[in-house]
Amino acid sequence: MQDEQKISQAVIDRLPRYFRYLGELRDQGVERISSRDLSAIMHSTASQIRQDFNLFGGFGQQGYGYNVDHLYTEIGRILGLDKEHHLIIIGAGHLGQALANYSNFANRGFIFEGIFDSDPALSGKQVAHMKVQPMEDLVDFIAQNDIDIAVLTIPKTAAVPVSQVLVDAGIKAIWNFAHADLPVPEGIQVENVHLTDSLMRLSYSVSTSSGKE
Amino acid sequence: MQDEQKISQAVIDRLPRYFRYLGELRDQGVERISSRDLSAIMHSTASQIRQDFNLFGGFGQQGYGYNVDHLYTEIGRILGLDKEHHLIIIGAGHLGQALANYSNFANRGFIFEGIFDSDPALSGKQVAHMKVQPMEDLVDFIAQNDIDIAVLTIPKTAAVPVSQVLVDAGIKAIWNFAHADLPVPEGIQVENVHLTDSLMRLSYSVSTSSGKE
Repeated sequence: MQDEQKISQAVIDRLPRYFRYLGELRDQGVERISSRDLSAIMHSTASQIRQDFNLFGGFGQQGYGYNVDHLYTEIGRILGLDKEHHLIIIGAGHLGQALANYSNFANRGFIFEGIFDSDPALSGKQVAHMKVQPMEDLVDFIAQNDIDIAVLTIPKTAAVPVSQVLVDAGIKAIWNFAHADLPVPEGIQVENVHLTDSLMRLSYSVSTSSGKE
Repeated sequence: MQDEQKISQAVIDRLPRYFRYLGELRDQGVERISSRDLSAIMHSTASQIRQDFNLFGGFGQQGYGYNVDHLYTEIGRILGLDKEHHLIIIGAGHLGQALANYSNFANRGFIFEGIFDSDPALSGKQVAHMKVQPMEDLVDFIAQNDIDIAVLTIPKTAAVPVSQVLVDAGIKAIWNFAHADLPVPEGIQVENVHLTDSLMRLSYSVSTSSGKE
């Protein structure tokens, strides 16, 4: 892992996209691809692709292109997709239910093991392959089911205290959909999906581009 | 708008977060705040805050701090939140329904006007304040309801052809949850929310940090 720790956030942000395109090529039966052809498909530049892949030891041979299956597997390994991840969802509202029903995640090794909600009215409700559990059962469930990622789909006011419970219970990573920044200790990974922020960026682009007309 | 077009993507990405924190301060009745105090709350640096705000003409007075309400209103205006946006959702599955039920968006001026799905079994189904409409009605609905943003929550295979229909129908912006990059003409704004990519970035962080132990 030594080499991988020098990698910039910008490169890391590009890895899932490489993985997605290489997976599609593999599914189409493509065995080898040049950086030029890959850059054309991805609307990127060949030199950026070569630079990025060189960070991970190359994968390619001059004039011969990249082995698609090998590259796909290696990038998957770098992304940690060679291991299964066990997830719980906190918040069984519309968004929590939507994520629970998203079959793509399981295909990538992200397995939902449980879903929790503080609302007693939701307790026992079937969501995908799970039944909603009360928050009182959360800490024991994490310990007994080797949970590494918690998905937070709860209102922002609840997010900070719940994140502290999760960290104390041994959770290493939080996928945070709550509209709040979580003050977690070092070593705990947080990936934010702030949907309202995303919509505001789109609103900014629309306003700016219509100003040009 | 001239000044605003020089702004880098990194600054634009920070604006919704400033807007969120300033909104909270305003709700708490805070009238003025220094860049130092704001930076402490936001876990940012005072110099970055001053630099960012200077791009938009400052907003503050030396030694006196920023007027919270003024700054909140101005950043909202820059983000295009002083106007209402009219949205439609394409795809009435779990995610489309979750977004339709998200009341925060309406509070920010993002109004869902319609929801569409190609599945006849969903036609007429009540989702939040809307009834699911068939795709055949899409183009007329866009024209008659001054729709500026389309939200795509459909499978990746359908996303590209549907995005072309939307662009032909006059849509200026797409909020894309489909796991595909959309080849749209220049001038059409696309904001991608690739949930699987986001989860992979989290997986990468988890793998890398556990490698350090």
